[in-house]
Formats: sequence, structure tokens, C-alpha cells
Amino acid sequence: MLDELDTPAVLVDLAIATANIRRFQDFADRRGLVTRPHIKTHKLPQLARLQIEAGAVGITCQKIGEAEALVAAEPAIHDVLLTYNVMGAAKLARLVALSDWVRLSVVADSRSVVDGLSSAFASRPNPLIVLVECDTGGQRCGVTSPAAAADLAAAIEEAPGLCFGGLMTYPAAGKAADAAAFLAEAKRLIEAGGLSVDVVTSGGTPDIWKAETAGVITEYRPGTYVYNDRSLVARGVATPADCALTVLATVVSVPTPNRAIVDAGSKVLTSDLLGLIGYGEVLGRPDITIDQLSEEHGRLVSDGPIGLAVGDRVRILPNHACVVTNMVDAVSVLQLDGRVETWPVVARGRVT
Amino acid sequence: MLDELDTPAVLVDLAIATANIRRFQDFADRRGLVTRPHIKTHKLPQLARLQIEAGAVGITCQKIGEAEALVAAEPAIHDVLLTYNVMGAAKLARLVALSDWVRLSVVADSRSVVDGLSSAFASRPNPLIVLVECDTGGQRCGVTSPAAAADLAAAIEEAPGLCFGGLMTYPAAGKAADAAAFLAEAKRLIEAGGLSVDVVTSGGTPDIWKAETAGVITEYRPGTYVYNDRSLVARGVATPADCALTVLATVVSVPTPNRAIVDAGSKVLTSDLLGLIGYGEVLGRPDITIDQLSEEHGRLVSDGPIGLAVGDRVRILPNHACVVTNMVDAVSVLQLDGRVETWPVVARGRVT
Repeated sequence: MLDELDTPAVLVDLAIATANIRRFQDFADRRGLVTRPHIKTHKLPQLARLQIEAGAVGITCQKIGEAEALVAAEPAIHDVLLTYNVMGAAKLARLVALSDWVRLSVVADSRSVVDGLSSAFASRPNPLIVLVECDTGGQRCGVTSPAAAADLAAAIEEAPGLCFGGLMTYPAAGKAADAAAFLAEAKRLIEAGGLSVDVVTSGGTPDIWKAETAGVITEYRPGTYVYNDRSLVARGVATPADCALTVLATVVSVPTPNRAIVDAGSKVLTSDLLGLIGYGEVLGRPDITIDQLSEEHGRLVSDGPIGLAVGDRVRILPNHACVVTNMVDAVSVLQLDGRVETWPVVARGRVT
Repeated sequence: MLDELDTPAVLVDLAIATANIRRFQDFADRRGLVTRPHIKTHKLPQLARLQIEAGAVGITCQKIGEAEALVAAEPAIHDVLLTYNVMGAAKLARLVALSDWVRLSVVADSRSVVDGLSSAFASRPNPLIVLVECDTGGQRCGVTSPAAAADLAAAIEEAPGLCFGGLMTYPAAGKAADAAAFLAEAKRLIEAGGLSVDVVTSGGTPDIWKAETAGVITEYRPGTYVYNDRSLVARGVATPADCALTVLATVVSVPTPNRAIVDAGSKVLTSDLLGLIGYGEVLGRPDITIDQLSEEHGRLVSDGPIGLAVGDRVRILPNHACVVTNMVDAVSVLQLDGRVETWPVVARGRVT
């Protein structure tokens, strides 16, 4: 079946993805952690369903459009956490509409965001659940101290139409202990103020197998774990056998004995390096470096003979799975019975 | 009107794009150069039409899917050059179908590709025009010597269903003179063999204003020139006022006095650096560096006060326009009369 696929194609091995989902769910279950996978990686209702059937409490989305697309496509999704500061009339109206369909929670890291959410939900019958986003070392969004987290938690609880739902962080890789210390102190301060902290949610596949060390964490939001990728193999978080997403490409030119060009460039593999050398790994060919991408060409070079002919096909493990799936309208899914199904990436490109 | 747009949004200023098209067409006309713009940058039938109305002989596409989408949408497109080695039964069948609609030419850089094209077109009433792709220094695809170009030209001319159409190169930036020398020698050898070389086509916006220095070139295929971008400004090829494509983003968080986070990350701006520092330029704020992108967040830092508030909007000039337009389903086009129209990027994601 793979032989009949036109290239470039983004392949998903469903057996591997299913095993990845199962493995982390088991890990989390043993530690009493709730799982809430981030769908940014796959953007597929089918995989969201598998994650929920495996035991996830719901899904995490980054953009409202992702949530809208998945909720519309998959009735098993009843609970969505949007880990993003939502603002502006257009997005707030969509947020209100989405809250009619699922148990919705969002995050905030400033009074401005809380005020906007409150104005949109003040006249709604049920309050919107709002978590405080905490910057525990990633230096992206988030309040920067436990005291600020406690202040914002109180502001949320007081705001018409909102209720305080807990704490959220996206920790810096390798900083799980710092995150735990921040969150524990924030929780202590908030509880001292009379509020309960029902959810403390963290995420990130790089530290996925250390999720339990945090102690204070109640919920984990892994994204890339469903597919894994070359960067996670390089970090020792996954093995090549755990990688569910690859790119099938065709050799279109072999201009010199040690250079070949394939039909997957930056418009499929993306330019994400994540600190690695080369733009992906040609499976079975550790001697080859993908040393250059133009938009529709990938350049493969080897110190020795490249050993490829025009028309040959290669499979490439991309550096970063989450961005590759977002480049294509559909992925080719290798089913458990060997068939290949085409699944539209329904939440692809939902940037708002 | 821009105030009403939800963000992130990819904006195209039609007045600037039109002026960019006109400026290069005039430049080419004065030098007797045919223009054949590469639509990979905009992927829009509306802009292809403007390019043809300005005087372009036709368009250049990289993938068959791009050509299919544009030809279906815009009847003014009568002539397409596909600057890609086409192979495999599925793509060859689509190529045959496309040749019924437009004057189609393609490239080849190996006997394998020529054989495939010949097998598909041998029984067709009209021969397919095939140019020889030459590697004049870019070290991507292309025959690597003028003698090899001459051999392949003869093979094309002899192959059933094909006719030799000329020479094509995508030169390395700054190597226009090398490209001209290679192409002149290849042309001499081919003509010595009794074939005419009707078209010698080169491309690339980085050396667009040196297009005339090549002498042997008859046709130029600029792509990025329609929008320009930060990399071309850095190279001195365009000015900031010539840049038609920007990304409108909203500040979603200002966690510290010198850091702000916007709602455009790598899934809009892409990770393309093109040798630059930072992932784009915040217009009007040379003090700001976009030092980090995650998928849906862009991090803005300044040595001084960031001076932005949650909810503020910024416009970002991306490093590389061609890849940004490919991230979104539609662009917001600022019309000459000030209205903003939404144009679907119909050839987006057409990777096959």
C-alpha cells in the first residue's frame, strides 16, 4: 500500500501511536496523574478519541480554532483546556460558543486577560473555569512569582462570570523540579487565601517520564509523545521504534555520487532544527545528512557513496513532529491491518 | 479595517505587490528579458493574473498541485513551466492532464526522468517541452557540466513524445556570472549538435537586479520579489517600503518589563532564519528581537522597556515570505481602496 502513495507523504503508524498513548496513560495511572493530551501534535479527531478512550480526561488545545475543529468532528471530546490567553471580541465570542459544547477551561496570566474573559462570561449561566498560567522557567507567558499567581487567582475568583480552576505551566525542559517548587508555593499561598487549587497541570514530552517527580502536579499535557520525533530520540526520551510519524519522499535527482535530492523540503519537513544537525534522519542511513532544505527540495549528502537512484523512496524521521503534521492537508495512516487510510488534518492551520 | 481583523493574520498590501510586479517587469522589458514569475511565493490566482497582465509570458510552479490549483482558478494562465523533475505514474498522469489545459514545459536532469516523461507523452498528439536543468553552483538538482547538458538535450530531443526546450537553472545567490558561463557553454555545445536553444531561464530574487548581467539568459523567474521580505532587505535587494507581506499579531502577555509574547509563532512565521538574527522584525521597533518562537507564541525581547501592553497589535516583517504564505488558508489583502479582502491561498500545501 505504501508503494502506491504519491510523495511527499506524511505517514502515521497507528500501532506505534496507539502504543505511545497507552504507555503514557499507564505511567500516569500508576502515579495518579490525570492526562490531558495536547492535540497540537496530531490535530486529528481520531487520535483525540483514542487518547480519551485510553483514559484521558479531555484534550488540550492552543488555539480556539483547533478546539472548534476537533469538537465538531469528535463527539467523545467533552472537556477542553485552552492553554492560551484569549482576548478580543471575535475570539471571546467564539469562546462563549465553545463553552456551550464542552466543559471548557482556559488560562490567564494578567488582569487584562481576566477582565476580557469576565466581560464575555459575566452574563452566562455557568462560570468559565480559568487557571493561572505560571512561568516556572520557560520565560514565555505566565506570572513570574507564586505571589503574583495568588493575586491573580483571587482576581479570577472575584471576577463576574469566572471561577478559579487551578494552576498551569509549560515548564522549561529539565526544570521540572523548579516548576514543582514554584507551583507548590503558589498553591500554598492560594489555599492560605481560602481558595482550593483543584488542578495543577504541567506538560511537555521532553520531561514526560519525570512527570511524577513534580509531586504537586495533578494533570499532565503531553503533545509530541503520540508521535515522538528525532529530537526526542536525541534527548533519550523515545527510541526510534517509538516514532510514529515519518515522511515518505522520493529521490528526484542524484546529481553526484554523494548527493541526492528528495521531493520533501521545508514546506513538509520545516526548518525546525531543535539544536540538531540536519533536517531529519533518513531511516536506515545514518551516514546521510539532510544538510539543506529549500522549499520543495531536500538535499541528502554522505561522505561515502549516496547509494540511491532516481525514483528510490526513503523514509525520513523529522526533527519535530508537531510542525510537520501542520504542513499537510492530510496524513496517510498505516492501520493495524496494513491498510493505509487518508485522514484530513482537520485542525491544521487553525491559527486563530 | 485592519482593526477588525482577528490575529494572527498574514497581510498583503496589494499596492506594494503591484508596484513590485511592475518594477521588475519594466526592468526586464528594457533588457529584452521574458518574465515568468514563480508562484510559490504567493500561491494566489489573483496575483498570477496581475503578473500576466503586467507582461509575464506565464508562470513557474514547483509542484503539479500548485499548477493545477492556479490553472483551475485563473483562465488567464495559458503557459506553465514546472521547474521540477516529475516522475511516477500518478504524477505523470496529472502532468498529461495538465498539458491539455496550458502550454506546459517541464525540466529534467537525468535520463531516468526523461524516460518517464517520454513514456507518458509518447502517444500524445503534441510533444512535451522539456528543458535541461543545470547546476550552475547551487548544488541542488541539475546536470553538473555543459557537456552533460548537451548530452541530455540530445536525449530529450530523441525521446518519443518530447522536444528539447532549452536550459533552466536556479543559480546560487551571487553566482550569476558562473551561471552565465555554464549556460553559454552548454548552449554552444547544444547548438553545435544541431539543436536550437530557444529558452535559457534563470531565477531567484536575490540577484534579480543583476538578471541582465547574465547575457545568455532569455527568461527570468523571480518569486519572492512580489512580496519581498526581511532577508531581501538585509541583502539590499529591497527596501522596507517594498515589502508587501507582513504578519499582524496581538500581544497576549507582557510578563516582564522587557519581554512580550505575541500570538504568532512558528506555525505562522516559520523557523526560517536565512542567516538572520531573530524570526522577523517588529515594524517600527528596531530595538526588539523576536528571539524565540514556539508553535503559537513569539517572544519579543528588548534591552530597554518593551513598551507594549496586552492587546496591542504589532506588524512583523517575516524573514522569508514564501514560507509564511504557505502556513495559512487565506491572506488578508489590503486593496487599493483601503478595503481588506480575504483571499484563499488556493495552492497552499500542494506538496505533490
